[in-house]
Amino acid sequence: MNVLEELARRAKMVDASLMEYLEVGKYEKLRKAVRHYPEAGGKRLRPSMAYTVAEAVGRNGKDALPFGCALELIHNFTLVHDDVMDQDATRRGRPTVHTLYGMPTAIIAGDALFAIAYKVLATTPVDGERLRRLLASLSDTVYLVAEGQQMDIDFESRDDVTVEEYMEMVEKKTAVLFACAAEGGAIIGGGTEDQIQDMYEYARLSGIGFQIWDDVLGLIANEKVLGKPVGSDIRNGKRTLIAVHAFEELGRRGAREHAEVLRAFGNEKATDAEVRKVIALFQELGSIQHGKDVALDYAARAKEKLCCLPPSKEKDFLREVVDFSVGREK
Amino acid sequence: MNVLEELARRAKMVDASLMEYLEVGKYEKLRKAVRHYPEAGGKRLRPSMAYTVAEAVGRNGKDALPFGCALELIHNFTLVHDDVMDQDATRRGRPTVHTLYGMPTAIIAGDALFAIAYKVLATTPVDGERLRRLLASLSDTVYLVAEGQQMDIDFESRDDVTVEEYMEMVEKKTAVLFACAAEGGAIIGGGTEDQIQDMYEYARLSGIGFQIWDDVLGLIANEKVLGKPVGSDIRNGKRTLIAVHAFEELGRRGAREHAEVLRAFGNEKATDAEVRKVIALFQELGSIQHGKDVALDYAARAKEKLCCLPPSKEKDFLREVVDFSVGREK
Repeated sequence: MNVLEELARRAKMVDASLMEYLEVGKYEKLRKAVRHYPEAGGKRLRPSMAYTVAEAVGRNGKDALPFGCALELIHNFTLVHDDVMDQDATRRGRPTVHTLYGMPTAIIAGDALFAIAYKVLATTPVDGERLRRLLASLSDTVYLVAEGQQMDIDFESRDDVTVEEYMEMVEKKTAVLFACAAEGGAIIGGGTEDQIQDMYEYARLSGIGFQIWDDVLGLIANEKVLGKPVGSDIRNGKRTLIAVHAFEELGRRGAREHAEVLRAFGNEKATDAEVRKVIALFQELGSIQHGKDVALDYAARAKEKLCCLPPSKEKDFLREVVDFSVGREK
Repeated sequence: MNVLEELARRAKMVDASLMEYLEVGKYEKLRKAVRHYPEAGGKRLRPSMAYTVAEAVGRNGKDALPFGCALELIHNFTLVHDDVMDQDATRRGRPTVHTLYGMPTAIIAGDALFAIAYKVLATTPVDGERLRRLLASLSDTVYLVAEGQQMDIDFESRDDVTVEEYMEMVEKKTAVLFACAAEGGAIIGGGTEDQIQDMYEYARLSGIGFQIWDDVLGLIANEKVLGKPVGSDIRNGKRTLIAVHAFEELGRRGAREHAEVLRAFGNEKATDAEVRKVIALFQELGSIQHGKDVALDYAARAKEKLCCLPPSKEKDFLREVVDFSVGREK
C-alpha cells in the first residue's frame, strides 16, 4: 500500500464536499477570508480519519464526511486565530488571513468557520441521539483545544515547563481533535461501544506520537524534508518534549558548564554552527533519543488499539499511516 | 405588570443555570477569562426570550433554559471578540478580557465560550430531530452575526453607507440572535410551525426596533439614563440610522452650508455645544423623527406577530417588553 497515494485519494474526496460547504454567506469580503485557508489545500487528515474509521467498522465512509469536514473547518478556524495570536505573517508561503484582511476580519472569519462547522455537523446522516452525542463530543473537544492553545501560549514565557505539562499541552492542542475524528467515525459507522472507545484511543495516542516525532524531525531531518529551516525550533526557543527533557536533565546535572552553548536557544540570530552545538548537547543528554522512544511507544500503543477492528484494507491503512508518520527519519 | 421586575425575575433564574454551565475546564487562567463577562451579570434578554416564548406556546419554560443559555454564551463570546477588535479597554466600567489577560487569551476565551455554548445546547431536553433543527438554526444565526460584525467594521471607514445597508447590519448583528432565541423557545415549547415562524419574526422585528430606538436615545436622553456621555455617538462618528439618514438628506439638499457644524461628527474633541449643533441639524433634517418612526413601526409590526399566541401572562409580557424598550424617552 502506498500511504501517500491513499491519503491523496481521500483528500481529493474530502475537498469536493468541503468547498461546497463553504458556499455560504453573501458578504463577499467575509466569504473570501473564510475560504482563504481551506482552499489552500492540505492533507485533510481529520476528515480522512473519520472516513476511514467509519469504513473500518463496517459502514459507508461517506456518511462520516460531514462530521470530518466539520473537524477540518474547526482545525482551520484554530489556524486563523493562532496566526492572529502569534502575529505570523505567512502560513505555508501564503499571507495569513489577518495579513490580507486585517486583524478584526481574521477574528470574525475564524468565528464564521466555527459556525459553519456546526452547521455542517447538523447534516450528519445519523439519528438524532447519535447527533447529540457527536455535538457534545465535538464541543468538549474544542474546549480542550482552547486549553491546549492557552497552555502553549503560557509556556512561551516560562522556563520551568515539565514533561507532564508538555504532554498535556500536546494532547489537548493536537491529539484530541484526531481522537474526536476517529471516535465520530466509529459512532457514525455504527461501531460497538468498545470500537468507539478504542478508535478514540488509537487516534489520541497516534496524534501525540505524531507531534513528538515531528519535533524530533525538526532537529534531525534536513531542510528540504522539513519545508522550514532546520533548527528553527532551537532559534525560536520552542519548548518541545526534547527541549523540556534536556532542561530537566540539565537541572539535575547542573547547566552552568553549558551556558555558552545554550545561549543559542531562543536566539533568532544564532548561527548554524551554534544551533548544531545545541542539537549536539540535546543528543548528549539523551533528549533526542528520549523523544524518539516516547513517540515510538505511543505509536505502538496506538496500533494495539486496532485489534478491535475486523481485517480490512482500512484497518491496514490505519496501521500503516502510523508507521508512515512516526519512525521515518526523513 | 412591572416589566423591570419581570425581567429581573427571569434573569435571576437564568443566572443559576448559566454559572453552573461555566463550571468547566481545569486550566484556571482560561476558566477565569471565560467567566469574566458572564459573571458580571446582565439582563439575560436572550435566555428570557427563549424561556418566555416556550411558556407562551404552552410548555414549561425551563426546558428552553439550556438553549437560552447557549445564546447568552454566544452573545458573551461576541462581546469578548468585539472588544478585542475595537481595542476597548473597559466594558460597563470593568476592564475588558484582553485588558486583563492579553489579546491571545481573549481570543481563546471567546472561542471557549463558543464551544461551551454548543455543549450546553446538546443538553436541551427535546428529541434528536428537534435538536438537529436548533443546531442548524443557531449555527446559521452565528454566521449572520459574523456578517453583521464585518459590515459594522467596514462601515467605520466608509461615508457612503446607505439606509438599506445599515438596516441589514442591525438585523444581522443584533436582531437575529433574539429571533433565534424566540424561534428556539417555540420549537422547544412544542409550538406549531406558524407559531415558530411568527415568534422568529416577532423577535427579529422588535430587535431591530430596539436597536434603532437605542440610537435615538443616544441623542435625546440624558447622561444619567444612558450610562454613557450624551453625544458619544456623534463624537465617535457612529453611523446610526439617524446619521445615515441625515447624510443621505444632506447629499440630496447639499451639505456645503453645514460643513462647519458637521466637523464635530467623528471628532472626539468636539465640545458639548458643537455636539448639540449636530443634533439640532439632525433634528432639522427630520432624521431623529425618522429614527423614531422607523423604530415604532418595527415595534408595532412585532406586536402584531403575537396574535398567534393564546392569551396568557407570558403573551402580555412579550407585548409589554416591546413597549418598554421602544418608545420610552428616558
